[in-house]
Amino acid sequence: MNVATRIIGIDPGLRRCGWGIIESQGSRLSFVAAGTVTPATDGSLAERLAELFSGLGEVLDRYAPQEAAVEETFVNAGMRSALILGQARGVALLTPAARGVPVAEYAANLVKKSVVGTGHAEKDQVALMVKTLMPAASFKGADAADALAIAICHAHHRVAHQRLKALA
Amino acid sequence: MNVATRIIGIDPGLRRCGWGIIESQGSRLSFVAAGTVTPATDGSLAERLAELFSGLGEVLDRYAPQEAAVEETFVNAGMRSALILGQARGVALLTPAARGVPVAEYAANLVKKSVVGTGHAEKDQVALMVKTLMPAASFKGADAADALAIAICHAHHRVAHQRLKALA
Repeated sequence: MNVATRIIGIDPGLRRCGWGIIESQGSRLSFVAAGTVTPATDGSLAERLAELFSGLGEVLDRYAPQEAAVEETFVNAGMRSALILGQARGVALLTPAARGVPVAEYAANLVKKSVVGTGHAEKDQVALMVKTLMPAASFKGADAADALAIAICHAHHRVAHQRLKALA
Repeated sequence: MNVATRIIGIDPGLRRCGWGIIESQGSRLSFVAAGTVTPATDGSLAERLAELFSGLGEVLDRYAPQEAAVEETFVNAGMRSALILGQARGVALLTPAARGVPVAEYAANLVKKSVVGTGHAEKDQVALMVKTLMPAASFKGADAADALAIAICHAHHRVAHQRLKALA
C-alpha cells in the first residue's frame, strides 16, 4: 500500500509568492491548502525578503510537507528583474531546505505540460485544470493556482526525480 | 561621547560569501573579525542556500552586529548568472533582516570609492586599503577583504543613510 506524501509547491515572487499543499498517494491527488504570501511593499528589500521567509516558514511549520517543489523561473525582462526574482527565489528555495525538506525544481513549461498537457498554457487554463484534477481545491488568484500546479507536477515526477538523484 | 557600532559587511556569492565585522566609533574604525562562508558545491541549489544561511547565521549570532551592509552587485554575465547571484544575494540580505538587524545596500563602485578613493579600483587595491585603514585587520582572500570594505563604506555613510531613511 502506498503511503501519502505531503508536497508543497511554491511559485516564487517578491510581491506575491504562491504556495499550495497537496497529498499524493499512488495516482491519487488531494488538496490540503493554498494561499499567497504578500510581503508589505513599504519595507526595504531585506525586510521584504525576511517577511517572505517568515510567511513561508509559517506555512511549512503549519502543514509540515515532506517534499517541496519550486518553479525554475526565467525572466526576459532584463538583468535587474532577474536579480530581483532571483532574490525571492533564493528565499523560496532556502525556507524548506533550512527545515530539512528536500526541494525539487521544475521548468515552467514542464509544470504546464504536466497539468494542462501543453507547455504554452495560459494562467486561466492552469487554474481550470488544477480544479479539474482536484475538485475539492479552493484557492484565490493565479499564484496559488500555479503553486498547486507545481506541487502536482512534482507528484507526477517525484519518483523519477528521486531515482535520478540516487544515480547522481 | 560616541558609542561604538558593530557592523557586518557581506559580499554575497553562492561559492564564496565574504563577511567582515568592524566597529565604528566616531571616525575611528576597528577590526573585529572576517572570513568566508563556502557552501559545499555537491549539494542541490536549495541545500547550498541553506548552508549559506546557516553559515552567515552563525557569524551573526557569534558577533552580534547592530547593522549590516550588503553590496549591490550587478552582473554582465547573462540572465542565468544574474538569477544565481540574486539567489545568494537574497539569502545574504535575509539572514541579518530575519534577526532584526537593519541592512543597508551600497553599489560596488561606491564601496570602492569609499575605501580606495576611486570607483574603478582593482581587488588588490581594496585589500591594501582595508589593511591601511585598519592595520590590525587579518583576513584571507578577496571576498573577506571586499566584505570589510563594504562594512567600512557603511561606517562612512550610515549617518546620511539613516537620515535619508527617516525622511522616506
